[in-house]
Order: sequence, then structure tokens, then C-alpha cells
Amino acid sequence: MSAMETLIMIPGPTHVPPRVLAAMAKPMIGHRTDEYSAMHLACEARLKRIFRTDNPVLIFACSGTGGMEAAIVNTLSPGDKVLAVNCGNFGQRFGEIARRFGAEVDELAYTPGSSANPDDIAAKLAADGDIKAVLTTFNETSTGVTNDMAAIGAAVKEHDALLLVDAISGMAAIECQTDEWGLDVVVAGSQKAFMLPPGLAFVSVSDAAWSAVERSTLPKFYWDFRAMGDRAEEGQTAYTPAVSMIFALDTALSIIMEEGVDAFAARHGRMAAAVRAAIRALELRLFGDPAHASNTVTAVRGDGFDPDGMRKVMSEKYNVLLSGGQKELKGKIFRIGHMGAVTEREILTTISCLEAALTHVGVAIARGAGLAAAIEALAESP
Amino acid sequence: MSAMETLIMIPGPTHVPPRVLAAMAKPMIGHRTDEYSAMHLACEARLKRIFRTDNPVLIFACSGTGGMEAAIVNTLSPGDKVLAVNCGNFGQRFGEIARRFGAEVDELAYTPGSSANPDDIAAKLAADGDIKAVLTTFNETSTGVTNDMAAIGAAVKEHDALLLVDAISGMAAIECQTDEWGLDVVVAGSQKAFMLPPGLAFVSVSDAAWSAVERSTLPKFYWDFRAMGDRAEEGQTAYTPAVSMIFALDTALSIIMEEGVDAFAARHGRMAAAVRAAIRALELRLFGDPAHASNTVTAVRGDGFDPDGMRKVMSEKYNVLLSGGQKELKGKIFRIGHMGAVTEREILTTISCLEAALTHVGVAIARGAGLAAAIEALAESP
Repeated sequence: MSAMETLIMIPGPTHVPPRVLAAMAKPMIGHRTDEYSAMHLACEARLKRIFRTDNPVLIFACSGTGGMEAAIVNTLSPGDKVLAVNCGNFGQRFGEIARRFGAEVDELAYTPGSSANPDDIAAKLAADGDIKAVLTTFNETSTGVTNDMAAIGAAVKEHDALLLVDAISGMAAIECQTDEWGLDVVVAGSQKAFMLPPGLAFVSVSDAAWSAVERSTLPKFYWDFRAMGDRAEEGQTAYTPAVSMIFALDTALSIIMEEGVDAFAARHGRMAAAVRAAIRALELRLFGDPAHASNTVTAVRGDGFDPDGMRKVMSEKYNVLLSGGQKELKGKIFRIGHMGAVTEREILTTISCLEAALTHVGVAIARGAGLAAAIEALAESP
Repeated sequence: MSAMETLIMIPGPTHVPPRVLAAMAKPMIGHRTDEYSAMHLACEARLKRIFRTDNPVLIFACSGTGGMEAAIVNTLSPGDKVLAVNCGNFGQRFGEIARRFGAEVDELAYTPGSSANPDDIAAKLAADGDIKAVLTTFNETSTGVTNDMAAIGAAVKEHDALLLVDAISGMAAIECQTDEWGLDVVVAGSQKAFMLPPGLAFVSVSDAAWSAVERSTLPKFYWDFRAMGDRAEEGQTAYTPAVSMIFALDTALSIIMEEGVDAFAARHGRMAAAVRAAIRALELRLFGDPAHASNTVTAVRGDGFDPDGMRKVMSEKYNVLLSGGQKELKGKIFRIGHMGAVTEREILTTISCLEAALTHVGVAIARGAGLAAAIEALAESP
């Protein structure tokens, strides 16, 4: 193994900056202290700016899937009808969680790589007034597609249904107007654009969602929004918080605020555009609807070569970690994560090594073309 | 605030050693990698040695309460009768979780400070053959009492009921013979004797418990033992693990193994004996049954003084953090945590500052007597 750090270009966990790593190593403190409460409140205030919401943002000790489960068990009751919008593995998971907890799930499934059509959601809601909630994925990590949450929010707000959003791999990197778009429960995760290790989920809860919480009869304890909400104003959680992760969150949020919430998202747009330009210049095919290409993860078809063999070369020869396809996409695509701390340097490194790795596994490419396209794309939007 | 670190003498989170803090700050790695899997498997193997079990030990990203919920939702079904043994706040919580998930809970409640009587449990089980599970607390953090799990295990094994154990504040510090005592599901937490930040729960699952998992109809997704078990042999978790916490766990387990599993627990016994000797010498009254005094937390009555005012002096003047009483014990007791990395030095420091703080708030004590007793107790069992 190289003495150099691996360059992690997967859609989470992402590179954790040294300042954040240093915060992880801070000596432990008691969690029922003023020191903890002040830090927790300062974190929540900045999370609200990133979520663009006035709603409380609860912080759970769990990975993102736990946050998705929390969204379900707090707002639904057994037998509730929900519309699960499935654009890939994580959309499928959200519906599966609801099904597991006894919801009656109507699935609106799209071919992987497609984005959700807000008109389809509107039609479903118009046809069935009993739908209590719509489950959606903001950014589908498995396919590299971002859904139009503004339009989906508008479609749902015509009806009396909650909009639950898995925004785990999108939040902070891609503008998310939680309140303006009418997103009722929005779930984010630490190990994506937030530049943190995995282990925290952030969950915003709208007034309409709080009303649903009052009606919900699904059993819950660890995920209980009310138990969390009861102590949120004092900067406390219902159960022991992951203190070191909160130290790190505090630092990561400072880094985001230093760059600026808008600039942070804009940078992601630039990086993603450069990656896509390089992929096109190499005459590889992007997977997924280009009109809804994600700014945090790019999926690329492995047409005519084994993407997993190429990834192995990327990892072993160049120490750059990419992701493969999940489930039915295994062996068919590879995925480049470009979120969090990534700068132009990491994009150029990744494209350069990708060209070398493709050459190594015998894919005929115009060597240098990917890099040239990336440089040009970055120069166009300085 | 002092530039010196706070001396954390609360029953969790506990002091995290510098080596463990340094591990928290290791650069991120992908979790679906051989590197992660190898580390995860090495952690599980050592956890089994500490649990003294051949059963799998699952590692969840959550705080201890999440592990308790996992024990309930994986082994029970709605309407199942359970016997909840309540010796304090955390025993009460275990029963409350079961109740929340629709179990029919028969509570065996003891006066706070008492330990559970195994004969009472045997009698309850003999009287009601429908009891599916007994919920117990190994070490009741709120009162400083350790239950006799060997005897409780023997009582339960006469009957066809599972034994679910919250061992969060006991595991590693107090000998726990998971297999020999017949403990079916045992839950431990990272932020106690394991010297880690909060954010991981460790859950062992016996063969009988796995059979119960097959029958259980309670809904679950994030906590699903089967989803976790399916990937355990390859060193993977069902959902994204808290990678940095696993780095730290790997290091903390190395520290425990270097000291030795038996020696690690024996040290806790020595430290606890010294604290108790000092408290007695100061003519303060221990809270809780002395025959079942905990080796990880000592609760002391605040007879004739305000324990919270004294703790404030401990914190502000001496930078030593103690805990107060919870719920109905608030303002009546204070608690000293002595688990994890604590050495004789921390015990002597705590007792010394306690004497000074008691003096400061006007409690008449034989100054020096606590320290003398602690020194003697430590000398007696070198």
C-alpha cells in the first residue's frame, strides 16, 4: 500500500479535510454540558442555512439510511398509502423502508438513469386522493441523476400529501430550497458533501410534517422526532449524541460558511461540468439523463470494456478510488464522486489517471482529450 | 475555560486516549474495500473475546439506545409478553422501548439502588409460561448497581425465554460471560469502558436469538439483524458504517488487548474499590446496594448538602466533571464514573478535588481521610 493517501472519488464517504480530521481528534467532553449545547445549536443554525429552511434540523447518530427510516416512522401509520418515486437503488430503498413498516406503497419506477417526471407524480396524486406521502430522492447516487425538486414540490403542494426527500448525496452540493419548494422532511448525511465521516444524519421537519408526527402511530423510540424536538431548543438530543462527529460537523460547517453556501454549491457545478466534458471528449457515454446530470456523482457506461477491471487499475496503480455499479448496474457502469472538498486539482488528477487506466486496460481513447476538455470547462466558468 | 483538558469522571462518554483520538483523525477510506473489511473483521474478533462469546457481534452506527431498540425489534412481535427488570432509569428505558413497540410488558421494578433478585425473575417466569423475553440491565448507570447476570442467566435458562441484556455501561469493565451465562442478546456502547466517543453499539446475538429473529414480525430496516448478518462474514455492514469510529475502535481494542481482557476488568475493580473506600472514609453514604456496587460508576448520596452545587465547584474550580442524579434522583445524588482509561492518578485526583469541593461548599469532612483510604485500597490490591 502506498504511503500516499488514497484519493477518494466515490459518492461517499468523501475526503475529510485535515481541519475536520483534527476536530475528530479533540478530547471528549460531557454531552450534557453548556459547551456541548452551544456547539450543537451553532451547528443546527448553519445546517438551516444550508437546507434553506426555518424548520428545525434534527441531528441523529446514524448513517443516512437511519435518517430515511426516521422520516418514515415519524410521519406514517400502518396502511398509509405512499407514492415511492424510484429512479434507482436509493429510491428503491426508500420505498422498501416504507413497505417494511406497513405502508401501502405505490411505486413510480423509472428506468435507471432517468429522472422523475413531476407530471407523473401530479397524475398519481390526482388519481388517488388517499396518498399520504410522496417519497423522493433528490440526487440518485446509484445513477448520477438529480431530480427537479422544485417542480416535484410544486406538484405535491397541489395535494394534501407530505413530501419526504432523501437528499443525502445532494444536500449542500446542489441547491436545495427546502422551504420554498415545500419539502416536508429532508434527510442529509454527513459523509457526502459535508466532508465528514459517516455517522450523522440531518433531518429537517416542516410544520405539516410535525402535524403528521402527531397522527403517526408507527412505533418509534430512537428515531422519535418528538423526543428529539423536546430537547432541540436547548441544544440537546434525546439520546447520547456522537460527540466527536459533532466536533467535526462544527468545523466542516465553518469551512462551508467560509466558502459561502452559494459558492460551495457553484463549485460543485463547475467540477461536475468538467468531469462530464472530459467523459464526452473521451467518447465514453454518460449514464443517465444529461438534462438531469448530478453535480455530485457522474455515472459512466462501461461499453466495450470491464469498468470494474478499469477501477482496479485506478485503485492499485494510481491509488484513486472510483465506485462501480450497484445491483443490476454492477459491471455495467463506473461512478466518479465529486463532492465535498474536491478542487480542480482532484478533478484533473482523476481525469488524468482515468485516461491512463483506460489506456492500460486497452480502451482506445484520444489520449489527452479528456484532460483538455476538463481544463477548458474549468476555464469557461472561473 | 482552562487550557487544561477537563477530567471526565462521568459514566460516559469517558476519556478517549490520545492513540484513539489519533485514529479518529485518520484519512477517510471507502467502506466497500478490502481494507475496511479486514479492519471490521479484526474488530469483531476482539469484541467476541471481550463479550466472551462465539456468537456474532454486530456493529451499528448509533448510540447505545439504538442497540437496545435493535435488540427489541429483532426478537419480538407485537403482543409478545416480556418481563422488564427495572432497577433504574436505563432498565425503565428498556421496558419503555418494548412497550413502544407493542410488547405486553410486565415490569419487575425495584427501588432505585437495589439490584435485581434472580429469584423474583424465576418466580415470574414460573408463573407465566408465555413470557418471551426478559429485559435486563447488566450495570445500571443511574444508580451504580451491577446485576448478577450469571444468576439471572441461570434463572432464565430454566424457561423458554430469551434474555436481552443492556450491558452498555458494564461491558469490558466488568466480566461478562455472554455464552456461559446464557445471555441471548447483549448490547454494549462505544462511549463507556471502550474509551471511544459515542456513536457505535455492539450487539451479540445467540443461536436462540437468531431463531427468534426468524419469528419476529416487528418492522425493522436499519436495525435488521439479518441484513447485518448477511454481510458480517465479509466484514461489511448493511448500511454505511461509521468508518472513523471503526478506526478508533480498532485502536481501542488493541489497547484493551495489550492490557489483557482480564486485567482490564480487574483494574476497574481496583479503581472502584478505591473510590468506595474514599467515600466511606469521608462518611458520605454510598447510594445503592453495597453487595452489588458497580465497578464502573459510584453513586453517592448528597445527604445534608446540594450535590449539584458541589459538582459545579468540581467543574468550575477543579475542571473535574462528575454526574448528577437522573429524574427522581436529581439533586439527591452525585455519580462518579470510573471506567475506560482511568488509572490510579485519576482516582486520586478525583478524590482530592472532591475533598476540596466538599470543603468549599461547607460539608464537614475529615480532610485527607478520603485520599488516605483510596491510597490504602489501591495498595491492598496492587
